[in-house]
Amino acid sequence: MCAQLLSTQPYKGTRDFYPDDMRLRNWFFGKIRNSLELAAFEEYNGPMLESLEMYIAKSGEEIANEQTYNFTDRGGRRLAVRPEMTPTVARLVAGKIGELNFPLKWFSIPNLYRYERPQRGRLREHWQVNVDIFGCDGFEADLEVISTAVMLLKGFDADESMFKVHINNRRFFNDVIAAIAGTDAEGSRKVSKVVDRKNKVTREAYEKDMAELGIDGDKIAKIDALYTMSVQEAAALCPESRGACELLELFSALKNAGLDKYCVFDFGIIRGLDYYTGTVFEVFDEAPENNRAMFGGGRYDNLVGLFVKNTNITGVGFGFGDVTLENFLVTHKLIPDIYNQGTKVLVTRFEDVPYEKYIALTDKLRSLGVVSSMYIGVKKFGKQIDYAVKGHYSHVAIMGASELEANTVKLKNLSTREEVTVSLDELDGYFAN
Amino acid sequence: MCAQLLSTQPYKGTRDFYPDDMRLRNWFFGKIRNSLELAAFEEYNGPMLESLEMYIAKSGEEIANEQTYNFTDRGGRRLAVRPEMTPTVARLVAGKIGELNFPLKWFSIPNLYRYERPQRGRLREHWQVNVDIFGCDGFEADLEVISTAVMLLKGFDADESMFKVHINNRRFFNDVIAAIAGTDAEGSRKVSKVVDRKNKVTREAYEKDMAELGIDGDKIAKIDALYTMSVQEAAALCPESRGACELLELFSALKNAGLDKYCVFDFGIIRGLDYYTGTVFEVFDEAPENNRAMFGGGRYDNLVGLFVKNTNITGVGFGFGDVTLENFLVTHKLIPDIYNQGTKVLVTRFEDVPYEKYIALTDKLRSLGVVSSMYIGVKKFGKQIDYAVKGHYSHVAIMGASELEANTVKLKNLSTREEVTVSLDELDGYFAN
Repeated sequence: MCAQLLSTQPYKGTRDFYPDDMRLRNWFFGKIRNSLELAAFEEYNGPMLESLEMYIAKSGEEIANEQTYNFTDRGGRRLAVRPEMTPTVARLVAGKIGELNFPLKWFSIPNLYRYERPQRGRLREHWQVNVDIFGCDGFEADLEVISTAVMLLKGFDADESMFKVHINNRRFFNDVIAAIAGTDAEGSRKVSKVVDRKNKVTREAYEKDMAELGIDGDKIAKIDALYTMSVQEAAALCPESRGACELLELFSALKNAGLDKYCVFDFGIIRGLDYYTGTVFEVFDEAPENNRAMFGGGRYDNLVGLFVKNTNITGVGFGFGDVTLENFLVTHKLIPDIYNQGTKVLVTRFEDVPYEKYIALTDKLRSLGVVSSMYIGVKKFGKQIDYAVKGHYSHVAIMGASELEANTVKLKNLSTREEVTVSLDELDGYFAN
Repeated sequence: MCAQLLSTQPYKGTRDFYPDDMRLRNWFFGKIRNSLELAAFEEYNGPMLESLEMYIAKSGEEIANEQTYNFTDRGGRRLAVRPEMTPTVARLVAGKIGELNFPLKWFSIPNLYRYERPQRGRLREHWQVNVDIFGCDGFEADLEVISTAVMLLKGFDADESMFKVHINNRRFFNDVIAAIAGTDAEGSRKVSKVVDRKNKVTREAYEKDMAELGIDGDKIAKIDALYTMSVQEAAALCPESRGACELLELFSALKNAGLDKYCVFDFGIIRGLDYYTGTVFEVFDEAPENNRAMFGGGRYDNLVGLFVKNTNITGVGFGFGDVTLENFLVTHKLIPDIYNQGTKVLVTRFEDVPYEKYIALTDKLRSLGVVSSMYIGVKKFGKQIDYAVKGHYSHVAIMGASELEANTVKLKNLSTREEVTVSLDELDGYFAN
């Protein structure tokens, strides 16, 4: 034992989940898991430690080194604590590419680590729902992924006044920039970086960055105009573009599926990562005090190709973090009272009754499906009641010598204060109500 | 993109969980979670990365350094990927010691990393159910923890022919060794290390190690005799020992609770870790081909004291790994067919029917609580059926132009091959059966 006391704080940027916190997380992830399983998504998982090479291949040495927790094991392997799930899922798909049943509808709820300064809504450890469809090139997969995002939020009784899905297309972006500014693919890519930063810099800085790429004056004005166009107006600017066709097809399908009220075309959605190739989207919180992108995703065509040669398995998906979800649910008051959700019985104890009688009663309650525990230990009756109240028990079961003799138990409802004496043989009837 | 393809293998000693694997893990951990919640245990969790100091304080610098994945962050903090949950839970208890509702009944199902050579049943990453009770010094907590271990296994329909709980007490061990060999506390501790290794070395080496501690000849014979004694006979060797009283009290309570058929006194159970102070136990697989300790636990009195001064919060608990549990379930054939557990409908697609008709049908199925998906993409009908079979779908829903016109759908049961045409308005009736 060391003389110095250890800190009770968790590591910077990480959280402890005491039972009250865990109950909330289990509640919302439980709802999400149920919704996804109902829609025939299947859950997978992978290890916390992965080869650092994967993140370098995807994002470059500098980003991978700086933004992950990484180290070298005794065998000289460079490892990272996983910062995101997409490389892992691409690795899994590549690993069994010949056996898997495409299109895959997969999800996972991993914890992830990123090495950055903790700030509101951005911690070093968080949990993230990852939803992906692999092996379908058509609009159907994009539609299913977006409708799944909507379904998850609707599952919490959120409606279209609370969130909106902002949708764009990376191919369309490149083509319309080319049509307006005459850029080549690399030029459009550079413009996308500037547009992606637009809301984070002054108008002056934005125009300066654009000018450096040869875009000024009325070209900037034409790009500005895209932000207020309907998807049809925007697509008309480059009608031959595959991206424009994809956008029109997706929006038409969203309308036919009755999802248009949740969705809006937004030319400002870029998603910084270079690996997106088609549809990109972000889900915004519509609350004025919390208005911001909550999560997003899109289509990426080449990730499985990092692992297998000559493959063409496309993916489309999104990732949704627990901190953001909890903020959204709190803002819109969508969290019910998660304590008072059912019966939970504390079997109190008197010392003049053999302990095994309480064990038998508790076993009986559990066999009826009633959450229950005997009071563990020896304390005065009042202390046991305090324990039940503080522990969110709904009832206490009281069995003294006289009840025992009469083969009964007194059940006290802790919220109504009602007390009922019930025969031990009729317990099921009491709890069936 | 790098020219070299990346490996699809997970890091050495870790596993990928494809949906088939995940389904199994979710099934058995789901059962365990339900059993624990029924018994009013509450779930908690903590971060994957913890201060290395915690493990050094508990197990010493050498073990902590060698057996954990550890590294230093940019702020100079020494971190470990958690190798076990006990220090984390002690930290959580210490952190809210004034607010928590003792006795606590807590559990967690974390993934853990230990840095050691992978071997059968011992991987570098595994998941472990951790069950603990804090704040009760009496036999009631030991009884509840052991009965919980039994309950979890019974929850899988395991019976007393398949497993046994082997129980000892560290205080009793020290006292009876002192009574036989005249050792002091430190001497008894040294003997415990030799006894703990007994089954791993030759008889000759065992006797030599004992002789070095001053124990030879008839003292060794007296210790040998303890292995075949009943708990009453053993306790009679040092009737004044608190440990002997605790053992007798616990075995009496186990008998009164009807758990004696699952339990046996075993003087050979030491549990190597120095922090155990009272009851210690290990659960053995009774299958001849798999006969070995599956998991264990016991009472530890001082861990919270690493974090808070002058505290006396005792704990008793156990940890049970997923690899061991799966081996046990496989050996005893306790895993049901986890695929064919319910209805799962694939809505197949013809190109001459508008896609949104299939979306509406799928939405309707989901609203009835039926797990379902439309086929995502455009493939021939036969390929869609193949997809349904390979994907463990129980039914396909077939809606061509004629069914659409008649407001019906054809439902085909993929195992019985039965086909029924059902009105869209009567779908609920079909699936209610």
